Amino acid sequence: MNQFNQDTIVALATPNGTGAIGVIRLSGPDAVQIANSVFKGKNLIKQASHTIHFGTITDGDLVLDEVLASLFVAPRSYTRENVVEISCHGSNYIIQSIIKLLIRQGARSAKPGEFTLRAFLNGQFDLSQAEAVADLIAADSKASQQVALQQLRGGYSTELQQLREQLVHFASMIELELDFSEEDVEFANRGQLKQLVHNLTRIIGKLILSFELGNAVKQGINTVIAGRPNAGKSTLLNALLNEERAIVSHLAGTTRDTIEETLNINGINFRLIDTAGIREATDAIEQIGIQKTMEKISQTALLLYVFDVENITAEELQQDINSLYKPGIPAIVVANKIDLAQNFHDTFHPYLPDGAVLLAISAKEKLHIHELKELIYNQTIQGKLNGNETLVTNIRHLEALQKTEQALIKTLQGIDRQITSDFIALDIKQALYYLGEITGAVTTDDLLDNIFSKFCIGK
Amino acid sequence: MNQFNQDTIVALATPNGTGAIGVIRLSGPDAVQIANSVFKGKNLIKQASHTIHFGTITDGDLVLDEVLASLFVAPRSYTRENVVEISCHGSNYIIQSIIKLLIRQGARSAKPGEFTLRAFLNGQFDLSQAEAVADLIAADSKASQQVALQQLRGGYSTELQQLREQLVHFASMIELELDFSEEDVEFANRGQLKQLVHNLTRIIGKLILSFELGNAVKQGINTVIAGRPNAGKSTLLNALLNEERAIVSHLAGTTRDTIEETLNINGINFRLIDTAGIREATDAIEQIGIQKTMEKISQTALLLYVFDVENITAEELQQDINSLYKPGIPAIVVANKIDLAQNFHDTFHPYLPDGAVLLAISAKEKLHIHELKELIYNQTIQGKLNGNETLVTNIRHLEALQKTEQALIKTLQGIDRQITSDFIALDIKQALYYLGEITGAVTTDDLLDNIFSKFCIGK
Repeated sequence: MNQFNQDTIVALATPNGTGAIGVIRLSGPDAVQIANSVFKGKNLIKQASHTIHFGTITDGDLVLDEVLASLFVAPRSYTRENVVEISCHGSNYIIQSIIKLLIRQGARSAKPGEFTLRAFLNGQFDLSQAEAVADLIAADSKASQQVALQQLRGGYSTELQQLREQLVHFASMIELELDFSEEDVEFANRGQLKQLVHNLTRIIGKLILSFELGNAVKQGINTVIAGRPNAGKSTLLNALLNEERAIVSHLAGTTRDTIEETLNINGINFRLIDTAGIREATDAIEQIGIQKTMEKISQTALLLYVFDVENITAEELQQDINSLYKPGIPAIVVANKIDLAQNFHDTFHPYLPDGAVLLAISAKEKLHIHELKELIYNQTIQGKLNGNETLVTNIRHLEALQKTEQALIKTLQGIDRQITSDFIALDIKQALYYLGEITGAVTTDDLLDNIFSKFCIGK
Repeated sequence: MNQFNQDTIVALATPNGTGAIGVIRLSGPDAVQIANSVFKGKNLIKQASHTIHFGTITDGDLVLDEVLASLFVAPRSYTRENVVEISCHGSNYIIQSIIKLLIRQGARSAKPGEFTLRAFLNGQFDLSQAEAVADLIAADSKASQQVALQQLRGGYSTELQQLREQLVHFASMIELELDFSEEDVEFANRGQLKQLVHNLTRIIGKLILSFELGNAVKQGINTVIAGRPNAGKSTLLNALLNEERAIVSHLAGTTRDTIEETLNINGINFRLIDTAGIREATDAIEQIGIQKTMEKISQTALLLYVFDVENITAEELQQDINSLYKPGIPAIVVANKIDLAQNFHDTFHPYLPDGAVLLAISAKEKLHIHELKELIYNQTIQGKLNGNETLVTNIRHLEALQKTEQALIKTLQGIDRQITSDFIALDIKQALYYLGEITGAVTTDDLLDNIFSKFCIGK
């Protein structure tokens, strides 16, 4: 990996577009020399780390801009290399002129994620932390930001690292047995090993299970709003969002496309999906809409079934619930239009499936919308997110954990079948390998390419 | 203006959008205290100016992000106030969370241009320099960037300031005469005053004239490509741009809309305008296209008249030139398709108007395109832009200069007519007032509002 540390890379670290300032980042052994060669002001080479200097960037006699240069001397920088950040006026023309000049002076254009890749290669953080940087930049809710930040700050890595160290210890004991194989000694106590592998499998199983929640927190939780035509689904969507997003009319079948909007409740993003009404379609376009609804329901994490209290019979309700409800998926049955009902009596309760809850509201009059939001949160998140728990949000990590789990199960089976030390050692090494892939203790160029090419340039 | 300095303002200084980092800028008396109240790391209050500190931004127990805080202690900052710049991960969610938190801690959202307004009010630079900041951010060519940078660095202001000081001197002499008006003395030598006002008028006249070039440099120089259908205008546009911008076909009348593209020659932007062919239109849409062409020609700074050497008679050429050519506007007559002519002899020269030059090219084969570019530059810019000259690019400055000129002319007329000192003093004060408007020696809240409201937020 040493080629990475030979040259000095440069890129714009701030978004493209016009702003007050743009920040150009240089990193590598010659970062300070290269910056200094075009900087008129103090001699940057002689300045202390973490200091800021006013001056001009000049190309020969031509002044390109007045700038601030921030100096980070290795290893006290993001990449642990020498870093100079040049803060210039936020004109694309000026930014590109300065970057071109720095390249002429010996820097080269950074590849996507290359600054973070260097930070990883130089031991600033492990691979899962590096990946958390990208997640953090993409974070769009309190929960996704907190999960990413926890991962960046090493919560995740610490847990995996501890597991791995214990396993490494047993692996080395078993290796030792191999050296003394003629003597038939057991350095690694099989009972203790079994106990450890059991523990590991349990912890890893828990991490694997956390992915569902972790992924929901990162991507947002799919919440389908379904019901008969004219039950008030679009009005409910608007009431939840507190804006006029969906077209509402008294005509049944107004909504044909599914509409998706993000609603934030207690820091979690819910992706509300308004659907076409479920009924016998009267035309082909509506038929497609209903098919789409059924598809969406099959993938949802939460079903909001809405009905009009004034316009439904118990039989129709039961029929709807039978066709829409999937055991294991939380459901909220929303009795709508209670403003129109003279005296709303809940005669629908007996028809609800197990685990579903019923709430009576008026979407139009915005009655009990707040309670509905709380219910949406409680049915999906409540009690699951305690803030300290480690959540797996990355599908690459999930896959590595699943492979680790398989190797651990094989190890357990091997111990039970009393297979020889060398085969047990192989299984443990397999488990170590996959665990190591998460933190980057084990990497390949392909893996790194794959991870960092998804980063933006400048990070 | 003191209300500006009472409170501490905050805004994102980098463009919106996802990037590696975002920079949040705080400025005002409490900038350091407010930043420090949410920053976990070193105590920012105790740190030196121009230093950078790693830490976290925390909202109570909740960590919002890991950041770098850059410290600028008044008056050593852009605004000359205390400034803290927080460099955080470039997620819109994180940026907004931090800004909201800083506002809860006592900062308020900055208005557009408010940082630069404060820099102006605190004497960091004068008004024309403040305006140059916005021009610099909008700069999209070497020339426009250089003009803006020169203005930012005070070249412009220095010149105006010197003129103003001389005038102030005479104004005070004349004021003195008013105090001794019974005694009929002349402290201000009328001959010298006349000489000075003459000089001023000449310099200001030159500045006024520079606006045409300054504005062209800032906005780009309009260059209309005109000619008969099928003369190869679109092919020429593509050849100049070195890309396939315009749809080209052998059918006459292919281009209907005018197409505008920017071509950079020697750091100057030329706005190339491809037009519909000039001929008797065969349908209504084409007729509109031809009308548009004539409109564009009436506003152009340079006319490129293109003809097909194989398909035009001397009479037709003369007829075109008569209808298109406007005296005073530089014109280049482009003899196209010389690759098709067996032996191209320039038999067209006698028909050219005064000052127009002829160049034979082949747009299709890209023959002599480089020479054409040089010619475009030379006909409009050559000799006019020496790099040190002050160019007026701002229409507000132009108007103030024109008003100054009028007041100076009135002053001269007054001296010639030997009117009394008090009237001369009034005219000079008028001139001083308008000159002062440019540098901000004279300002009104409306004027400042008008200038800074056009800035982006965060600058």
